[in-house]
Amino acid sequence: MHEPMQRPDWIALDWGAARLRAWLMRADGSVIDTRLARAGADEPGAVGVEPALLALVADALGDDGGSGQPVPVLCCGLAGARQAVPFVAVPAPPPSSQAAVRIETRDPRLDLRALPGMKQDSPADVMQGEGTIVAGALAVQPGFDGVFCLPGEQTRWVHVSAGEIVSFRTFMTGELFALLSRHSVLRHHVGDGTGWDGAAFDAGVGDAMARPQRIGAALFGIRAAGLLQGLSSGAARARLSGLLIGLELAGSRPHWLGQDIRVLGTGGLARAYRAALSAQAASVQTMDADDLTLRGLRAAYEGTTG
Amino acid sequence: MHEPMQRPDWIALDWGAARLRAWLMRADGSVIDTRLARAGADEPGAVGVEPALLALVADALGDDGGSGQPVPVLCCGLAGARQAVPFVAVPAPPPSSQAAVRIETRDPRLDLRALPGMKQDSPADVMQGEGTIVAGALAVQPGFDGVFCLPGEQTRWVHVSAGEIVSFRTFMTGELFALLSRHSVLRHHVGDGTGWDGAAFDAGVGDAMARPQRIGAALFGIRAAGLLQGLSSGAARARLSGLLIGLELAGSRPHWLGQDIRVLGTGGLARAYRAALSAQAASVQTMDADDLTLRGLRAAYEGTTG
Repeated sequence: MHEPMQRPDWIALDWGAARLRAWLMRADGSVIDTRLARAGADEPGAVGVEPALLALVADALGDDGGSGQPVPVLCCGLAGARQAVPFVAVPAPPPSSQAAVRIETRDPRLDLRALPGMKQDSPADVMQGEGTIVAGALAVQPGFDGVFCLPGEQTRWVHVSAGEIVSFRTFMTGELFALLSRHSVLRHHVGDGTGWDGAAFDAGVGDAMARPQRIGAALFGIRAAGLLQGLSSGAARARLSGLLIGLELAGSRPHWLGQDIRVLGTGGLARAYRAALSAQAASVQTMDADDLTLRGLRAAYEGTTG
Repeated sequence: MHEPMQRPDWIALDWGAARLRAWLMRADGSVIDTRLARAGADEPGAVGVEPALLALVADALGDDGGSGQPVPVLCCGLAGARQAVPFVAVPAPPPSSQAAVRIETRDPRLDLRALPGMKQDSPADVMQGEGTIVAGALAVQPGFDGVFCLPGEQTRWVHVSAGEIVSFRTFMTGELFALLSRHSVLRHHVGDGTGWDGAAFDAGVGDAMARPQRIGAALFGIRAAGLLQGLSSGAARARLSGLLIGLELAGSRPHWLGQDIRVLGTGGLARAYRAALSAQAASVQTMDADDLTLRGLRAAYEGTTG
């Protein structure tokens, strides 16, 4: 038999569209265990977060017969949207646990609370979970003044000053790439994702920044170049990525020009943003985003963002 | 019993991604009968066009025991791509039957030929079938000098002068609209397609033309406005359409500015393009595109485009 799991003092929970991540935490901020469940987009929302959460952590909650204290669970991400948690308007610091809203559970061993998303009234914009990643970055670099770039299905440009999120802007770049590469007429050309052509990426960035208004034609041009000029699938994929990131950099220029930029991310996408920004002579560094969500949840739980 | 079907002198065939249309023709250009088959995208390509064609017209071919003359079938659209028919480079008149390439059939009653697509080397571009629609428009308005706008999954801007297609440019606007409205995070906001808000469309066109580089943020703004401001699904859908068409008009301006424009299409999409172009003080009329494909196939068969 395994040694019984130590009961966590609290649980950090990241409810994403495609996965649920839970960290079993001690009061001193150290991690007992990490749990991960993949889920189809919207799936936790459809069945409710409680069954998905229990499937991940029930073994660690113990059996207190309802007589003990429930385990606090602090959640960021999509839970807020499902539970109609009011958004916090910017400018504001990233939400702390004081702003969290209780989510009803049947299991008395859980005290589940969701951090609110953040909103901007003009131009209208929303984000959920990204405020917590920013809190994590601020815990690593207290006093940072500049712009965080958070690439993903949507990319967020978040302007931070004096510990507050001053403004932010969301671009649908990642989702456009996914839709075009998987479902459009270009899917026959961009292949399965192996191979990368840095020169084709750079050329795509440059073309889109020079003529962003022609993006709809430049995209179809990938198909034409495949049919007429034998453009390879690796080059086609890199060009597609370059065109869409270049389009975004043209549109987000007011957010990053002259700013100190931190790209929060891992892997190829973060490298692509950094390469494209560096080519624009921007001051940019990458911060590995892997544990920034946990750091942000911990900062929110402790009521401080550094 | 029905009277036996008159054997057609030839058959006009439009092989689209989603449907196959056949017209049974007399030598004098009049129509005996029209046939239509819906097919999933790529379906005729997967099974080959011959079974799909026979399912549509076999009853009209008679039973000549292989001794009689085959019925000529002239096909425009996707057949060329499957059969590696060489593209015709612009500038050139729309392809006539002299440029058609024979497609092998098992059934001896068929003499199937496919019209080639057209290509442009710089900027690289291709179109298949649209050249035939242009031929049809030129049969209706011989001597037209200006720009044809053909909205659809892809929108083509085709510059015509002295009976020749001088240049053309393809924009992926229609496909972007379909992907974003059906598969993106915006699908929850744009609803099922009922309702239309003309003011939201106009505002979308204006916003995208003024700041085309910010399209990625403007698109996500539809979601934000839905969550924060209660934007209706009809307004969201019209705004999405307006943003994408406005982006295209910003990018295609060199093609249409100062030109005499004919939008070839039917229904709401053609009306939307006409409204957006008219708001830019462009000289624009709509030509009903319903029978322009048949007119184009007839013009190609007869070896003249008027």
